[in-house]
Amino acid sequence: MKDKVVVAVAGMPGSGKAAFQRALTRMGYPVVVMGDVVREEAKLRNLEPTPENLGTLMLNLRAVDGPAAVAKRCVPKLEKATEQIVGVDGIRSLNEVNEFKTHFTDFVLVAIHASPKTRYQRLFRRKRSDDPQDWETFMERDLRELGVGMGDVIATADHMIVNEGTFSQLNTRIKKVLKEILKDE
Amino acid sequence: MKDKVVVAVAGMPGSGKAAFQRALTRMGYPVVVMGDVVREEAKLRNLEPTPENLGTLMLNLRAVDGPAAVAKRCVPKLEKATEQIVGVDGIRSLNEVNEFKTHFTDFVLVAIHASPKTRYQRLFRRKRSDDPQDWETFMERDLRELGVGMGDVIATADHMIVNEGTFSQLNTRIKKVLKEILKDE
Repeated sequence: MKDKVVVAVAGMPGSGKAAFQRALTRMGYPVVVMGDVVREEAKLRNLEPTPENLGTLMLNLRAVDGPAAVAKRCVPKLEKATEQIVGVDGIRSLNEVNEFKTHFTDFVLVAIHASPKTRYQRLFRRKRSDDPQDWETFMERDLRELGVGMGDVIATADHMIVNEGTFSQLNTRIKKVLKEILKDE
Repeated sequence: MKDKVVVAVAGMPGSGKAAFQRALTRMGYPVVVMGDVVREEAKLRNLEPTPENLGTLMLNLRAVDGPAAVAKRCVPKLEKATEQIVGVDGIRSLNEVNEFKTHFTDFVLVAIHASPKTRYQRLFRRKRSDDPQDWETFMERDLRELGVGMGDVIATADHMIVNEGTFSQLNTRIKKVLKEILKDE
């Protein structure tokens, strides 16, 4: 039996990275959501999970435990999983990548890329409450993601999936990458 | 007649971005090399073009003219070109991207990606005097590139070319992207 593979996926807003996690779930693999760790910590501290409280708590955790504070809290969850693949959702910096690499020999980083134009059109169509409705807001959100280190994570990914086409094309590519990952490890 | 398209290519060391510029040159399109601008400036100031002198001069130019100092000096060269496509080699930060976008409506950013493992193997085989011969030196060089903003440029590229295969596959992809660029603009 081969070692468990921890697969983290990174991508800019609207790149389609959520599809990767959904594909993992459909295939029966668990996904650890990094944001959930912050929400659980809020619960432990009797804080309402408002965006403000969660933001402050995140800064707080990082001030105490360093820039990989959230990743550190995900490690026990990833260790507990017994499946062949475990996904990680929400990775945003090389500090977090390095934290996972320290704990898991078989750590694989997947990036999903789409052009800014494509991503903007997707988010504009999606119209989730926090999705940008103009180019300026979209650019600001991009810069926020890059500011925490998302660009460094994408540029050094082990697998790059280009997602400019249909949802079905994306799913075919995701399955191909997962097959390669299982073959390599 | 459509407007001239300025095409910049970004990629981590060993990704294969030089092949993109060679393809442009073979197709008869000029390429403006950002590093040449610094070498020309050194000549004007009667400085020997040693790596140390060029490094200090680059910092100097940026201190005086801001983070896009080198890009600014490339603009007149790009403006002079009369071909349908003009390449830019050596883009490394969003400040430079924004400088070019200010001057050229049809500015297209292409990124070339390969996994760290593939890039390391390529550089190791290439053995150019400044190529890393161990994983640690390779990682240091990666971090230097990311430190100036290369990750941000790659993550926000308009076209992403994945280069994990042969040289001939890469060339096919490059030609496809150039065809799309000429169609789009």
